[in-house]
Amino acid sequence: MADKIDRTALWGMGYGMYIVSAAAERQYSGQIANTVFQVTNNPPRIATAISKSNLTHEYIKKAGHFAVTVLEESTPMIFIGLFGFRSGRVIDKFEKTAFETGLTGAPLVTEHGVALMESKVISEIDCGTHTLFVGEILAARQLKTAVPLTYKYYREVIKGRTPVDSPTFIPEGKTAE
Amino acid sequence: MADKIDRTALWGMGYGMYIVSAAAERQYSGQIANTVFQVTNNPPRIATAISKSNLTHEYIKKAGHFAVTVLEESTPMIFIGLFGFRSGRVIDKFEKTAFETGLTGAPLVTEHGVALMESKVISEIDCGTHTLFVGEILAARQLKTAVPLTYKYYREVIKGRTPVDSPTFIPEGKTAE
Repeated sequence: MADKIDRTALWGMGYGMYIVSAAAERQYSGQIANTVFQVTNNPPRIATAISKSNLTHEYIKKAGHFAVTVLEESTPMIFIGLFGFRSGRVIDKFEKTAFETGLTGAPLVTEHGVALMESKVISEIDCGTHTLFVGEILAARQLKTAVPLTYKYYREVIKGRTPVDSPTFIPEGKTAE
Repeated sequence: MADKIDRTALWGMGYGMYIVSAAAERQYSGQIANTVFQVTNNPPRIATAISKSNLTHEYIKKAGHFAVTVLEESTPMIFIGLFGFRSGRVIDKFEKTAFETGLTGAPLVTEHGVALMESKVISEIDCGTHTLFVGEILAARQLKTAVPLTYKYYREVIKGRTPVDSPTFIPEGKTAE
């Protein structure tokens, strides 16, 4: 069937850009993710697909929670690079980042954030390379009124790259259109 | 905890706009959804959150497959209205819509589509009012090079409404910004 799959067909799908974070054993982890979406409205629940190779995956598994920061369109590349292309195993991402501690203990990144939400994991699906976590929202608030960053804007305007272990990996220089 | 949840915080999340469809007992069903996203790249797998009250939910459950059409930005409101605000229980949505039959038997809506994909359901999570279906891509292709429609564009430029049973219900006239 593999020859029937033209992956460019998947590149037209739309996403926002987020930081997904968690705390375990008093340590913080956070990473860029574009695969965050709302799955129900009553009660409000969200889902995210996180690579099993990422430290944030390990922390979400341990903690049973995850927090989400909706990033603003003007988020600088250096900030995206820190959270998207560096591992929390070798660098302390929170040392120079503005954040607060949430109800769950998760680090809520406020820097470049439009909105924050915290969730408790209520179920998960093993999807192979990634786990799909479903979380029930415990708290959510807007930080400011600003245009949220989209994956499309990140790829096509900022010319940002996508890590190979992203659920939506697109080779460098390619666009959906 | 309810007073800690400001739902406007969730309105900044980004989505595309899709038709999700399935066939069961030689009958077709399809609906607008914004909650479709890719969860892994190797092999390519996607997920979608579908309301339990919708006919398409019933058909995906029976068939074990779902297809996705990525809609183009110029999709007219009348077309979105047909697939988004009418039930397949009372109207034949496919009577006047261009589509083809996929590998799985699912109706693949080609009208106003940028890309098509077909998937086999490999797992699902009961999320309360909605089920989150995870599908492995069996076939995917681009239909044309056009700008995909986003949920933000639909809400803010086309001034489209959201059905109450959508995972991302936003009251009429409200925006994320």
